[in-house]
Amino acid sequence: MSRVPPAVAEIRRAVRQNLPDERRGPVVVACSGGADSLALAAAAAFVLPEVHGVVVDHGLQAGSAEVAERGRTALAGLDVAARVVPVVVGRGSDGPEAAARHARYAALRAVSDELGGAPVLLGHTLDDQAETVLLGLGRGSGARSLAGMRARTPPWCRPLLAVRRATTRQACVEAGLEPWDDPHNDDPRYTRVRLRHEVLPLLEEVLAGGVASALARTAAQLADDDAALTELATVVLREAEDDDGGLATEIVGKEPAAVRRRVLRAWLTARGVRESDDAQVRAVDDLVARWRGQGPPSLPGGLEVIRSRGRLTVRAARTGR
Amino acid sequence: MSRVPPAVAEIRRAVRQNLPDERRGPVVVACSGGADSLALAAAAAFVLPEVHGVVVDHGLQAGSAEVAERGRTALAGLDVAARVVPVVVGRGSDGPEAAARHARYAALRAVSDELGGAPVLLGHTLDDQAETVLLGLGRGSGARSLAGMRARTPPWCRPLLAVRRATTRQACVEAGLEPWDDPHNDDPRYTRVRLRHEVLPLLEEVLAGGVASALARTAAQLADDDAALTELATVVLREAEDDDGGLATEIVGKEPAAVRRRVLRAWLTARGVRESDDAQVRAVDDLVARWRGQGPPSLPGGLEVIRSRGRLTVRAARTGR
Repeated sequence: MSRVPPAVAEIRRAVRQNLPDERRGPVVVACSGGADSLALAAAAAFVLPEVHGVVVDHGLQAGSAEVAERGRTALAGLDVAARVVPVVVGRGSDGPEAAARHARYAALRAVSDELGGAPVLLGHTLDDQAETVLLGLGRGSGARSLAGMRARTPPWCRPLLAVRRATTRQACVEAGLEPWDDPHNDDPRYTRVRLRHEVLPLLEEVLAGGVASALARTAAQLADDDAALTELATVVLREAEDDDGGLATEIVGKEPAAVRRRVLRAWLTARGVRESDDAQVRAVDDLVARWRGQGPPSLPGGLEVIRSRGRLTVRAARTGR
Repeated sequence: MSRVPPAVAEIRRAVRQNLPDERRGPVVVACSGGADSLALAAAAAFVLPEVHGVVVDHGLQAGSAEVAERGRTALAGLDVAARVVPVVVGRGSDGPEAAARHARYAALRAVSDELGGAPVLLGHTLDDQAETVLLGLGRGSGARSLAGMRARTPPWCRPLLAVRRATTRQACVEAGLEPWDDPHNDDPRYTRVRLRHEVLPLLEEVLAGGVASALARTAAQLADDDAALTELATVVLREAEDDDGGLATEIVGKEPAAVRRRVLRAWLTARGVRESDDAQVRAVDDLVARWRGQGPPSLPGGLEVIRSRGRLTVRAARTGR
């Protein structure tokens, strides 16, 4: 092992440590041809017995087919059997980036399904995670916004979340690979690009370094916190919900605020309430924890929650109120 | 009420809503003479029956006594009986800002004690909270770093955490008060000042607004999350710790990671281990959750944790390792 160059070794180690159980079966690697996913594919090809490369062609720019084909060739050079999967990117309400991501993930999931639910390795790095946490700051939804991308949510697997982006570039240099530089990665019309090139460097300077790692560490801890509290909330919800979908305030009211709000959020979603915000969930929580006969809080979709005889129920809001 | 100017009314409302129980007893208001604390003192004087103003003179700049006296006079103009308390700022290991804060809080606590544990109102605003969260990002210790300042930890009480700084300035204008502008608030040698004047405006621009409020909302949610998990951890620690200070791995091992790590952190602190970092706590957690006979992880202060017969204990690290 001593002759393996350091960045290549670090990425192989990350792949090994984050794929303990699936080493023997097929694995899908998503590859854009960029440094992150190319270094990941190279490591996977070395570490794992059966790697299927997938290059998604979003068809959004002229020449995208050539770029995809170039990615496929690079994978073939690593002895990774790869295919180009063209997708049609719809017009999503969340903007073009989200629509492209949606189409890409659907295509990757289809390949995973075809291979019996094989894990799909994604090349997101520590720096991507830091940017995701900063994006979440603007939402202000606590642990859910800041927990970033998860290392494992089958079929997705992100073995490089503790690896710096610079390490993937270095690994490509060490391995003689020539990654493709997506011009979108420098386009300041994308929020993520501005976070990368403007906000993170300024934060690093002002806070005297280590910010990207700190953000990634924070994401991992908050993901654990959120998982533990969500699990508790699931148990409480099961106990508190009756057969008609009503919620017993006495049971929920015994819990601390962090659990109560997760119970209420899950219950509202199950009752068909979409996208309730923090202030709305707090207003519903006030029916449980600060009950003084107040009126029913309004919710999205023309719904409201009423409290009656120690039970919460969702109903259509009365008109004329 | 309709003739009360809006900013003054908002601050009075914030004081009323955040002091439900102590309205009848004495209350201390810490006042620097700046807009935040001056607006707070004015609201407290209107809302509460017995307000004691305290102006701390840190003695760090020439003319600090005059500034303090000016603050006292401003409070007297609000019919708030106020005193100037000079403090001696030591040389703390955490830098001059932390040392000044330490001295200031000790002086305020002494006045609170003198008044039978009266609450001490502090003028921190939503903007201060947002800056505190950003400062915490650089530490990367999850919810603990990002939970910001608490609204209530007796004797401290921060009724303005949901009020914008600009509102306190506006309230001063409306009330004809002339706040003192601390030149330190514009000195870019202070990290907090750079966060305020450089990082937050850039984040607001890149993330399209609402960042300060989102950070404050996130802080409140993470504080609740941390409180719930810490309470759970306290119960588990009580159950898992034996009379000799050993820790039963079987009991701790049943808990999710977020609870385990809080149990271990509290246990390590109780066993005299100071300032263990995230990686060290994770290594100790591996003794519980990923036990494969590994060696004892090293801790600060020449200590280590060993696992033996299903128990963790702290001991002095063996030399020569």
